[in-house]
Amino acid sequence: MTTIDVNAVKSYLLKLQDSICAALEQEEKKQKFREDTWDRPEGGGGRSRMLADGEVFEQAGVNFSHVHGKNLPPSASAHRPELAGRSFQALGVSLVIHPLNPYVPTSHCNVRFFSAEKPGADPVWWFGGGFDLTPYYGFEEDAAHWHRTAKAACDAFGPDNYARFKKWCDEYFFIKHRNEPRGIGGLFFDDFSEKSFDHAFGFMRSVGDHFVPAYLPIVQKRKGAPHGERERDFQLYRRGRYVEFNLVYDRGTLFGLQSGGRTESILMSLPPLVKWRYDWTPPPGSPEAELYEIFLKPRDWLATENK
Amino acid sequence: MTTIDVNAVKSYLLKLQDSICAALEQEEKKQKFREDTWDRPEGGGGRSRMLADGEVFEQAGVNFSHVHGKNLPPSASAHRPELAGRSFQALGVSLVIHPLNPYVPTSHCNVRFFSAEKPGADPVWWFGGGFDLTPYYGFEEDAAHWHRTAKAACDAFGPDNYARFKKWCDEYFFIKHRNEPRGIGGLFFDDFSEKSFDHAFGFMRSVGDHFVPAYLPIVQKRKGAPHGERERDFQLYRRGRYVEFNLVYDRGTLFGLQSGGRTESILMSLPPLVKWRYDWTPPPGSPEAELYEIFLKPRDWLATENK
Repeated sequence: MTTIDVNAVKSYLLKLQDSICAALEQEEKKQKFREDTWDRPEGGGGRSRMLADGEVFEQAGVNFSHVHGKNLPPSASAHRPELAGRSFQALGVSLVIHPLNPYVPTSHCNVRFFSAEKPGADPVWWFGGGFDLTPYYGFEEDAAHWHRTAKAACDAFGPDNYARFKKWCDEYFFIKHRNEPRGIGGLFFDDFSEKSFDHAFGFMRSVGDHFVPAYLPIVQKRKGAPHGERERDFQLYRRGRYVEFNLVYDRGTLFGLQSGGRTESILMSLPPLVKWRYDWTPPPGSPEAELYEIFLKPRDWLATENK
Repeated sequence: MTTIDVNAVKSYLLKLQDSICAALEQEEKKQKFREDTWDRPEGGGGRSRMLADGEVFEQAGVNFSHVHGKNLPPSASAHRPELAGRSFQALGVSLVIHPLNPYVPTSHCNVRFFSAEKPGADPVWWFGGGFDLTPYYGFEEDAAHWHRTAKAACDAFGPDNYARFKKWCDEYFFIKHRNEPRGIGGLFFDDFSEKSFDHAFGFMRSVGDHFVPAYLPIVQKRKGAPHGERERDFQLYRRGRYVEFNLVYDRGTLFGLQSGGRTESILMSLPPLVKWRYDWTPPPGSPEAELYEIFLKPRDWLATENK
C-alpha cells in the first residue's frame, strides 16, 4: 500500500506560492499581487495571484489550484489509457512572469501532483514540474546561472536527473511549426514517482524551491538595462511565440481548459501585449539574430564548468 | 464515375484572390498587397498576399494555396477514418482582415476544395468554406446586411442552405473556454458534395463571390468613425479572443500546421497587435458590454425582414 500525503503537498504548494510572490514583490516597488480565490463547479478550486502593470513585472501570475473530478480528462489519460475512468485530483503551483524590460527574460515554473483513484485500488500518483527561461536578448552568464541552479535542484535526487530533465525540457518546450525552442530550457519532468512518495515529493519541493534563486538574480542584474523602442518591439514580437506555444502545444493549458479550470487563471500565462509581424526575420549580425543563432539552440550551458 | 475539374477550381480561386485584393485596395489609399509565392517540400505551394500598416486595414492577408501529399493529415481524416492513407489535394483561398478602426469588424472568408484519391477508385471530394464577421462594436443594420448577403449567396442552391450553414457557423466559431461565440457568424459549410460536382462548385463560387458585397459596404460605412484610446484598447483586447480561437480550435489552422503548410501564411490570421488583460469585464451598460449582450449571442439577424 502506497502512502501518499495530499495535505502535505497542498501545504507545501500554498507556502511556495506565498514565498514566490513575496520574493517578486521585493523587486517590484510599484505594484502588489492581487488575489482571487475561485471554486470549480465540478470540484476544487484555486487561489490566483496576479500582479499587473508593474515597473519591473509587466505581468506576473502565480497560481495555486487543487481540482478534483470523477473522470480523468482526456489530456491526462491520453498516454495512460489504463487510468481512463478513474477519479482524480490535481494540485499545483504554476507561474509565468512577463517582465517589462526586454533584457529580463520571461520565466515559467510549475510544480504539480496528480493522483488517479478508484475504490479498492492503490492510487496511481505522480509528480511533475520544472522551470524554463525565455530570453529576448541572451546572456551566456545568465543561461549558465539558470542551468547551474537547475542542476543544483536535481543533484541530491539522482545523478542523471539534471541531464534527463534538461533534455525533456528542450524537447517539450519546442515550437514545431517554427522549428524553434521556446527559450533556453531548464527542467521538465512528469510521471515522476521514483523510489517513494517521500523521495518524489522531495524532488518536487527542491525544484519549486530553486525557482527564485534561479530567476531573481537575473531580474536584479538586467532590470535596469537601458533599452528603447527597438528592444521593446522585438520583445513584443517574440512574445507571439509564447502565445503560439501555450495555445497550440502546452499540456497544462489544454488540461486546464478541458477540465473546466478557471479560464482567466489558465490564460494569465498570455502576455499583456503582443505583436505578430508577417514573415519577419532579424537583420543578420544583429543582437536579435544572435538570440536565434546562439540561444535558441539546445545546448549544454554547463559544458565549460563541468569539464 | 465522378468527373471533377481541379483546374477549374484552381482557376476560379486564383481569380477570386485577385478580385478580393483589388476590391480591398480600392478602399485603402496608403498600402498595397505584397505577394509571396512559396513551395511546399511535400508537394504544392501557394501565393500569399499581405497588406500591412494600412490606414483602413491594419493587416489583411489573402492566401491562395494548392497542396498535395501522399497521406491525408490526421486533422482531415479524423472524422472520415475510411480515407486514412489516401493521397490528397487541397485548394483554397483564405483571408483574414484586421481593420484599424475599431468600428470596422474583423472578417474572415475561406473557400476550399478537397479531394482524397487512391488508384483504381473514384476520388472522394468535397467543398467547404464560408465567411464570418467579428465586430468590436456592433450595429444591428450591419449584422442584418452581412446575413442578408450570406443568405443571398445560398438561396439559389437549396432552400435550407442558409439556415443550415448559418447554424453550423454559430457552432463552429464558438470559443468553448470563454463560452462565447467569436462574432456574429455568417456561413460555414464543409464536406459539401451535394447533387453534383457542378452544383457544389457553383455553391462554393457563390459564397466566394458574395464576400466582397457582404463586407465592403460595412468597411465603407464605418472606416471614418471617430474613435479614441478606449475603443482601440477594447479592439486589442477582443483580438485576444481571435487568437485563442484560431490557435486552440480552428481546423484550418491545425490542418495547415500539421500538414507542413507555410507557417507565416497560416498565421497571418493572427492580429498585428493584441492585448490580454486578466479578469476584465466591460462596465455594465457600456457599448463594450453591449457587444457581449446583444451581438455575441447566436441570433436570427433576418428575423424581422423575413416575417
